[in-house]
Amino acid sequence: MFDKILIANRGEIAVRVLRACRELGVRTVAVYSTEDADSAVVRMADESVRIGPAPPKQSYLNAAAVIEAARLSGADAIHPGYGFLSEDSDFAEVCQAEGITFIGPPPSVMAQLGDKTSARAAMTAAGLPLLPGSVEPLTDPESARRLADEIGFPVIIKAAAGGGGRGMSIVDIPAEFARTYQTTKATALQLFGDGRVYVERYLPSARHVEIQVLADTHGNAIHLGERDCSVQRRHQKLVEETPAPGLPAELTERMGAAAVRGALFTGYVGAGTFEFLVDTENHFYFMEVNCRIQVEHPVTEVVTGVDLIAEQLHVAAGEPLRLRQEDVVTRGAAIECRVNVEDPKRNFAPAPGLLTEFTPPGGPFVRVDTHGYTGYKVPANYDSLLAKVIAWAPDREQAIARMRRALAEFAIDGPGVHTTREFLDQVLRDPEFVDGKHDTSLVARLLDGS
Amino acid sequence: MFDKILIANRGEIAVRVLRACRELGVRTVAVYSTEDADSAVVRMADESVRIGPAPPKQSYLNAAAVIEAARLSGADAIHPGYGFLSEDSDFAEVCQAEGITFIGPPPSVMAQLGDKTSARAAMTAAGLPLLPGSVEPLTDPESARRLADEIGFPVIIKAAAGGGGRGMSIVDIPAEFARTYQTTKATALQLFGDGRVYVERYLPSARHVEIQVLADTHGNAIHLGERDCSVQRRHQKLVEETPAPGLPAELTERMGAAAVRGALFTGYVGAGTFEFLVDTENHFYFMEVNCRIQVEHPVTEVVTGVDLIAEQLHVAAGEPLRLRQEDVVTRGAAIECRVNVEDPKRNFAPAPGLLTEFTPPGGPFVRVDTHGYTGYKVPANYDSLLAKVIAWAPDREQAIARMRRALAEFAIDGPGVHTTREFLDQVLRDPEFVDGKHDTSLVARLLDGS
Repeated sequence: MFDKILIANRGEIAVRVLRACRELGVRTVAVYSTEDADSAVVRMADESVRIGPAPPKQSYLNAAAVIEAARLSGADAIHPGYGFLSEDSDFAEVCQAEGITFIGPPPSVMAQLGDKTSARAAMTAAGLPLLPGSVEPLTDPESARRLADEIGFPVIIKAAAGGGGRGMSIVDIPAEFARTYQTTKATALQLFGDGRVYVERYLPSARHVEIQVLADTHGNAIHLGERDCSVQRRHQKLVEETPAPGLPAELTERMGAAAVRGALFTGYVGAGTFEFLVDTENHFYFMEVNCRIQVEHPVTEVVTGVDLIAEQLHVAAGEPLRLRQEDVVTRGAAIECRVNVEDPKRNFAPAPGLLTEFTPPGGPFVRVDTHGYTGYKVPANYDSLLAKVIAWAPDREQAIARMRRALAEFAIDGPGVHTTREFLDQVLRDPEFVDGKHDTSLVARLLDGS
Repeated sequence: MFDKILIANRGEIAVRVLRACRELGVRTVAVYSTEDADSAVVRMADESVRIGPAPPKQSYLNAAAVIEAARLSGADAIHPGYGFLSEDSDFAEVCQAEGITFIGPPPSVMAQLGDKTSARAAMTAAGLPLLPGSVEPLTDPESARRLADEIGFPVIIKAAAGGGGRGMSIVDIPAEFARTYQTTKATALQLFGDGRVYVERYLPSARHVEIQVLADTHGNAIHLGERDCSVQRRHQKLVEETPAPGLPAELTERMGAAAVRGALFTGYVGAGTFEFLVDTENHFYFMEVNCRIQVEHPVTEVVTGVDLIAEQLHVAAGEPLRLRQEDVVTRGAAIECRVNVEDPKRNFAPAPGLLTEFTPPGGPFVRVDTHGYTGYKVPANYDSLLAKVIAWAPDREQAIARMRRALAEFAIDGPGVHTTREFLDQVLRDPEFVDGKHDTSLVARLLDGS
């Protein structure tokens, strides 16, 4: 096991990684921006290094500063969390060159899967089902439009370098294709420095179901079941759960086997997530691989009993997987709600500020992952995730009741601070959600109705 | 299910009961003493009723005031928690007479098991193994001394009306018997208004292992495995865990079956705990039944996935048990640490006060049951339990590591406030504890050594 790990992230995931390190007896180095000097992970870590001012490009996205901090502190590994540098294969390569273990897949695998078109090609070769769409990045609007006509509208145009729900646009009718094609390319170039886009069929009422995989450097890969992430607002997940309600176990088993096949085919190492769309006839289609731990990993942890961050560390240290597929036994149902500092009444505008009160829920079968504390000033510079509440129960109905109890307990207050807490409760009360019959259109419908 | 439950308790257990009610859609009534007007359960409950001044006899032990509050608020059931009125069969009987469901066993069963000598007689009849000792309360010092000689020293003299580790004295040598007999009788009379005592063999290095049972009004009873509560200071438990380290599964299975036999024999209903001593040769001996939920119930909950308070409510509402014995499947290991407001450096003297900081640990597989919050003034009038930290992991070694991480995170501060947090960490680091080879003498040894 490593001696000292640098946590190249902030917020709740930095705290989450620190906890796993501490339980394994690994010392921790936090890196932080000026704005985050007071953050929970800085208070908790064995050491901390300021790496720059608030804007991510100058701190959490500043690869050189992070590597320098690792060198100075003598860290032998870097955990990138999610977002920021976590899917940057160049960064992973530089770590390797510096003799620092990057806790994630090999850089070449990250590069292959990070590019959505080469990921699609690889998964086609591995025999995974894909939605009809382009196999190469599109080169000009005319051939793109011809392809869209072949596929049939609606289609979705996606940035090849995108992911996590950013850089994609839906085109409902042919007349809108050309304009959307241009704006998506422009957005992609601006967001990712890479204007390549591709097109695929859009499923308006699909469910978003993903498979958690773990793979080691010895050629072993397993999956840890699925997560349903269909409750989304503008492609941002709000509520995640496992098992996926209403999906036959036989289907999720096949999806799990497909994800393992994809992992083995590409030489994947570490924790990863295979995202799929499931249509109303229960066909599933590969969407993308997330080469990192996911925000929603806790629901998998609480039903399987597996600490995914600890497993990432073991695998990164070169150990063979400690679990075989048959050791993965799930129990009950788990739901995660993301409590964001956003104002649902003002179109989910960020609403950070000083937390004069911050008392998370507790008690049986409720877990909270957060970096918040009473007296913490949530900075305005970063994403709005403040806390994840995870509720477990023997079945989904009881898990929903438990989650509603937990959300009701969660006391968060401060001048100008608003959260999604009450909106989440509205989701949990929605009859379609309660029946498990919702799809990715649920949130839009709720917001239209209010 | 009930419409409205009155919670006749305070502190963490009142919050725990409230959470179960809320998840089942049952409205809650908190009762509180003047001193507890600011307590967490009062803030959380749907209604609350002040029932008297701080001294328990005038509030939480004031049966008439509690019943009056139930009547006024229209509660159809009373949950007594632990301590206070929870094992008072007279109170249970009055509830019954008032048409209010007492959430616990029938009064007659409580009376039988609450008297330690009649409990011993019943369990002998049910075929449970007992330590050699008196079957009737002792009537005079001479015959008591003769019995002690027969049993062999050391012996323990216990109040027939005692329980929870109070009202008992160990006698190491015959010469001390007469004096200890008299003082124990006097203490018993003072504490319980009942001077009857009995004597049994004392096992100096026994382990304290208890079995959780659940029984319904339809003649069904099951057990939910064991808890090891050997880490005690002056008969007060500090750390509890399941499974009992090092005990053969075959033994705990037999203990479980014995407890179920005892429950069925006595017509037990609800959640109850059969306490046993286990000697160094793995023989077990019935000690007592606790006719209520235990402080340490969460370790059973986290390994079985069963919400014991919810099950109490279902059974009290007349439903048959929702679980059969074969449905009870345990997973992994769980440990509970009791964080008390006490100063280990001053012989564990109570050290309550205003909590200027109170940030419990969170994250994976850690549960906290507490009534504490930042700004709460812990009153000096009640027992010193402030929070229970429960850690789960696939095995005991990882659960210990996780618990140490959790305790290290727990930030509690305030003028004059001290806690057992660091002392608990010392227990968790003790080589005998780590090896699971400790017995009830562990804490005394640690304190002697410091």
